[in-house]
Formats: sequence, C-alpha cells, structure tokens
Amino acid sequence: MIDKDAILAANAAFYQAFNQADFAEMSRIWADGDVSCIHPGWPAVTGRQAVLDSFRNIFRAPEREKIEHHDDVVMVSGSASWVLNVEIISGAALALAATNWFQRIDGEWRMIHHQASPIAATIACSLSSERLN
Amino acid sequence: MIDKDAILAANAAFYQAFNQADFAEMSRIWADGDVSCIHPGWPAVTGRQAVLDSFRNIFRAPEREKIEHHDDVVMVSGSASWVLNVEIISGAALALAATNWFQRIDGEWRMIHHQASPIAATIACSLSSERLN
Repeated sequence: MIDKDAILAANAAFYQAFNQADFAEMSRIWADGDVSCIHPGWPAVTGRQAVLDSFRNIFRAPEREKIEHHDDVVMVSGSASWVLNVEIISGAALALAATNWFQRIDGEWRMIHHQASPIAATIACSLSSERLN
Repeated sequence: MIDKDAILAANAAFYQAFNQADFAEMSRIWADGDVSCIHPGWPAVTGRQAVLDSFRNIFRAPEREKIEHHDDVVMVSGSASWVLNVEIISGAALALAATNWFQRIDGEWRMIHHQASPIAATIACSLSSERLN
C-alpha cells in the first residue's frame, strides 16, 4: 500500500522550499536520476543539474512570487505516484493546473517531474487587464 | 531494462489516435486505474471516464486540430516512464511542452497522464497577431 499522506507531505515540502527559496531543501527534494520540469510558459528542462539551476535562477529574482497550492489529489498507478493541484501565484491573477511526480527512493518520496500549466480563464483575464493598461 | 522503443511507439500511437479521432484506439491506450489529463488551458480531468469523455468531445468538434509531436525524449525512473515532447498544433502558431506518462500493464504501455503546456513565446506571438487584427 502506498502512503498517500507521505506523498502529500512531500508535495507540501516542495512548495515550502519554493516559497522559502530554500535551495538546499529543493536539492534534497529532487531525485538523482531522470528528472524534468516544465515551468509555466517554458520548454521542458531535463536532468537534475538543469532543473536545480532553473530553481536557483527563480530564487535569485529580486521579487519572487509565492505559490499557494490547493485541491491536492494523490494519484497512484503501480509504483508511480503523482499529485494534481491548483497553484495560485501571489501578485498575479493566475491559476495553474500542476502535477508533481514522486518516486520512492531509499524510503523517501523524491520529485521526478513538475509541470504547471496556466488555466485559460486566468490567461484571458490577465490579457484583458493588459489591454486595458 | 525498459524498452524505450516500445514507449516511443505507445507515445506515437496516442498522437495517431488523436489525429485520426479514433476513439476506440484512444480507449485502448488509456489505463483503467488512476489517470489524469490536463488539456492546454484547462483544469485537470481525472478518472478514465472523464478523460475519455474529454477526448470524445474534442473528436466531435467540427474543425479538429491535428498535432505534430517533435523532439520525443523518454525518461525513466523506477517503473515510471514518461515522454517529453513538443507539440505543434495545426492551424495555430502554437507550440506546447507536453508530457505523456505510461505504465506497463499486462505487457502493454498504457497512458496514465497527459499534460500539454503552451510555451510563452508562442502565447506572446498569438497575442501580438490578435492585437494586429
């Protein structure tokens, strides 16, 4: 049996590390093997080094966005586990449909993929406000 | 050892079923357990029935878009396997960063998750052309 609470905790730890710009914790969270990340609006980043570099760059930005995650749902298929959630970005009228994939390695749920996709209603909304300015 | 060619073939079969609006084949491709799908701009759809309904609705549209997939890369972590690729949507200046997740079930690679995220350069591009019209 897969412990869904442990997966939800790993998912929450990812957002906490993001919001605290905690690079050491983000490094611990990501697995060592094949990993990939698709930040909103960007092409895929693959490989541990490139994925961690992408977070380091985000953490260095002078005004960092924070992310709230809502409606977490754990999905399980064989030994694959992923969390679906809605991300709300602070300071932007933007919601994203996100997936976070985890692999159990040496007793720990490590992240192997993150992908966040803008939800269209919010794209349309931010477009309209852009046009009004 | 995971047979990457078999995963690439499963990935190609998904796009072929999509482009041919082959609902029976799409039903065979998707697994029976936990599955999810995030179409571009939409919230997550979960569960086999809802995911297949979403494709049925797309297939019924009078003018259906076709998708070319490029730059397929197979990623493997434990028994989890996913393909990263770039999708080019016909009739739209739109490229998407997509992931397709597969689980080996009874000797077949079945799809457990699909997610396609617009790449910002193309969002910006389609916005500009919209503004010019």
